[in-house]
Amino acid sequence: MADSRFYNIKANVTLAQAAEVTSALLTDLSKQNEKIANISTMTSAGAEDICFFYDRKNKDKAEQMKAKACITTEVLKQFVPENVIVLLCEDPKIAFIKLNEFMYAPKGVQTGIDATAKIAASAKIGENCSIGANAVIGENAEIGANCVIEPNVVIGEGCKLGNNCRIGNNASIAYSIIGNNCYIYTGARLGQDGFGFQLINGQHHRIPQLGRLIVGNDVEIGANTCIDRGALDDTVIGDGTRIDNLVQIAHNDKLGRGCVIVSQVGIAGSCTLGDYVVLGGQVGLADHLNIGSGVQVAAQSGAMRDIEAGAVVMGSPCVPFKDFMRQVAFLQKNSKK
Amino acid sequence: MADSRFYNIKANVTLAQAAEVTSALLTDLSKQNEKIANISTMTSAGAEDICFFYDRKNKDKAEQMKAKACITTEVLKQFVPENVIVLLCEDPKIAFIKLNEFMYAPKGVQTGIDATAKIAASAKIGENCSIGANAVIGENAEIGANCVIEPNVVIGEGCKLGNNCRIGNNASIAYSIIGNNCYIYTGARLGQDGFGFQLINGQHHRIPQLGRLIVGNDVEIGANTCIDRGALDDTVIGDGTRIDNLVQIAHNDKLGRGCVIVSQVGIAGSCTLGDYVVLGGQVGLADHLNIGSGVQVAAQSGAMRDIEAGAVVMGSPCVPFKDFMRQVAFLQKNSKK
Amino acid sequence: MADSRFYNIKANVTLAQAAEVTSALLTDLSKQNEKIANISTMTSAGAEDICFFYDRKNKDKAEQMKAKACITTEVLKQFVPENVIVLLCEDPKIAFIKLNEFMYAPKGVQTGIDATAKIAASAKIGENCSIGANAVIGENAEIGANCVIEPNVVIGEGCKLGNNCRIGNNASIAYSIIGNNCYIYTGARLGQDGFGFQLINGQHHRIPQLGRLIVGNDVEIGANTCIDRGALDDTVIGDGTRIDNLVQIAHNDKLGRGCVIVSQVGIAGSCTLGDYVVLGGQVGLADHLNIGSGVQVAAQSGAMRDIEAGAVVMGSPCVPFKDFMRQVAFLQKNSKK
Repeated sequence: MADSRFYNIKANVTLAQAAEVTSALLTDLSKQNEKIANISTMTSAGAEDICFFYDRKNKDKAEQMKAKACITTEVLKQFVPENVIVLLCEDPKIAFIKLNEFMYAPKGVQTGIDATAKIAASAKIGENCSIGANAVIGENAEIGANCVIEPNVVIGEGCKLGNNCRIGNNASIAYSIIGNNCYIYTGARLGQDGFGFQLINGQHHRIPQLGRLIVGNDVEIGANTCIDRGALDDTVIGDGTRIDNLVQIAHNDKLGRGCVIVSQVGIAGSCTLGDYVVLGGQVGLADHLNIGSGVQVAAQSGAMRDIEAGAVVMGSPCVPFKDFMRQVAFLQKNSKK
Repeated sequence: MADSRFYNIKANVTLAQAAEVTSALLTDLSKQNEKIANISTMTSAGAEDICFFYDRKNKDKAEQMKAKACITTEVLKQFVPENVIVLLCEDPKIAFIKLNEFMYAPKGVQTGIDATAKIAASAKIGENCSIGANAVIGENAEIGANCVIEPNVVIGEGCKLGNNCRIGNNASIAYSIIGNNCYIYTGARLGQDGFGFQLINGQHHRIPQLGRLIVGNDVEIGANTCIDRGALDDTVIGDGTRIDNLVQIAHNDKLGRGCVIVSQVGIAGSCTLGDYVVLGGQVGLADHLNIGSGVQVAAQSGAMRDIEAGAVVMGSPCVPFKDFMRQVAFLQKNSKK
Repeated sequence: MADSRFYNIKANVTLAQAAEVTSALLTDLSKQNEKIANISTMTSAGAEDICFFYDRKNKDKAEQMKAKACITTEVLKQFVPENVIVLLCEDPKIAFIKLNEFMYAPKGVQTGIDATAKIAASAKIGENCSIGANAVIGENAEIGANCVIEPNVVIGEGCKLGNNCRIGNNASIAYSIIGNNCYIYTGARLGQDGFGFQLINGQHHRIPQLGRLIVGNDVEIGANTCIDRGALDDTVIGDGTRIDNLVQIAHNDKLGRGCVIVSQVGIAGSCTLGDYVVLGGQVGLADHLNIGSGVQVAAQSGAMRDIEAGAVVMGSPCVPFKDFMRQVAFLQKNSKK
């Protein structure tokens, strides 16, 4: 339930409007002028609220719901109490996203360029950008149209952002070329030197890090996540990839399209990930690995070798999921003797 | 031993004063005007220092001590050398806290509202607050009395802080309601969007994150820790809970009272923790788990299932502590054949 | 290949110059006036580029190279195609570092003291320092010569930095004494309170943290890494130690010289590490451990006990590397029956 401290809430939305926005079918047309106050979960929705039911596992919660209306599927509607007004659609999750966007708009959206922002004379700022207090933008940087740069962000010389990007406050960006529609969260660190050095006579000498960080379109990079730039080659994040908070991505890593990298994952240098790879929370990859498209690595697992496309693996070192479960069962059984 | 670069040190504290502050018994009253220069460890305390001895495991160190005075218990005093002046109390750890607070005050405590802070006109700032350079406070935010907001902090529109809170420099707070006496460390990220999206025709679409982050009273949140706000429900941190550095807490997590979450723990979304749960460093919890009150999870463990109140578990996936130790012993023994 | 957006590239470097800078032997003196455009990898180097070949494992890549010139060793030159001009030296990795430093200089190097930096009147700033926008430097802080303090850095009262240090933007430094030639990356948090408290009547009471953080010379500390100051003793990082991103180092830890601490490592309080200890990514150490010099702990491992100097260990809890591999093989073999 959105809090009006933080969101502008569209009042008096009718079920007819809700049906239209979500492309859903209102099963009882006599109810089309009934109004809903808020979107809520099945558990907490009250007599003025609408909720969404899309996972059969939650049928117990559905049967207990006290909402005014529920958007669900033809198959699941049997579990919804009779007094709840039902709207039917094919994918209630998509409907949920659409109705949210219709009913709620975040407050506090920053506009304009703050007088305290320090923008280098040679930097190019696109139309309709917002730049927050104390943001620093270096020489020859290029910021596309409609970007929001929040307070205290530092963008280094020569960096380039596409259109419609949002950079969360206190983030750092250097040596980076970033596409359109990217969302970099607060405190993320992009493009700093990779961790590379050479031991010479007992001293670690830094190996120059001369590559860049290339981020595709429609990428999200979570809060306090760190992505080092390349050493000679570039570090690359493919289109549509989603990276959670506190992730470490090292120099020269190349991530494909649509990958999902959950919180606290660490990827050592020079790894290549295909498309739609999913790495669960706290996964670690050793350096120079090839991880095929569609690979799924369970949380806390660690990979020391390449993984073939489509594999589902678990453990540290990771093995096929079924093997891991067999190992766990074997250990539990035999250690108790 | 406190360094006068960083602390104001109360000079010439007598043993009579030390005894009074700590509610300890000075065993040799003829020494009540003797003065101590500093609090130190048993190992490093010199002839002008006082130290504390509370753990029998350290009796070897106690026997070697060169301090002027030592605060310990009736039971442990037998290990203290005869030439050291002994003060007795029931709990020397509490005495240690009290004497520290009496003798040392940190320098550099910020006061007043810096001219460069950017405070929205509609924000309400309580009495006696300190707000540092370049801090940004959004519209309709409410800051209680006696709060210290350090430099470069960004607090978003509508956020609310109770009294006596301290927000470390470069931290980010959004969509959050925070209680009294909370200490948020440098670089912490509170209230950003959770990691939620829906795959539609090969593209990840963001699921709107409309909940809040609710933090109780007397909570500490460590440096660079990230806590996402809720999706529809709220993310909740209970009273008195302590969270270390670099922890990830995902959307809709609900932590009870007095929990201890050690560094680099990752808690996936929609978990519920009871009271006084202890998660060791680098622990990972899968999403939607119920972790009962008093549960202790050993460092680096991972939980994939609910854990009953009071259980002590270890391993990834975690099992009861004794089972884990048996598994370790079994593997060590049998793999060597 | 360096991008001229980010680097000033020395044009028209001759092979004679490259040989001189790297102390290499140009094998065909008739080519000494040939020019190189860029340094590149063996795989991507084109007809104007120079590359480096130092690892026999990459001999397939060497045989395919299309570079104008290659710096390699006497032993490896046999794998380089005949039409590539060869320069010989003992250690091509060192040559690589030297030629990089000769050909490329980063752009955007900040100079001077920004008008918006807030430097306390009693702070001492050495010669030739650069201090970025919105940086805050507290009373009695001392900054050595030739330091670069990037924007939005906060340095607390009484802190001391040696000469030639670089502090990345948005970093926080408190209660710290830092040596010469140190590089602290963006968003690092140094010297905050350790995670220590005492449970009294169901409430966690903070234990005062009165120590300091002492950092030696020639230390690197990665992005968003957190190092707590000591409780009574100091936290100490030895000369030449390299710490990657997102590492947690707790109060009273003492790291020796030349250690390598890879990303996302967590070291609990009061550990002592000898010299040249290597901790792989995501390693965890329990508190109060002694880790001998030269110890190597494989990624994702966890240590619960002291480790003798020179040991190579793996697993959680960790065991000697060979034992770990035997355990893995045993489990794989026997669980499949």
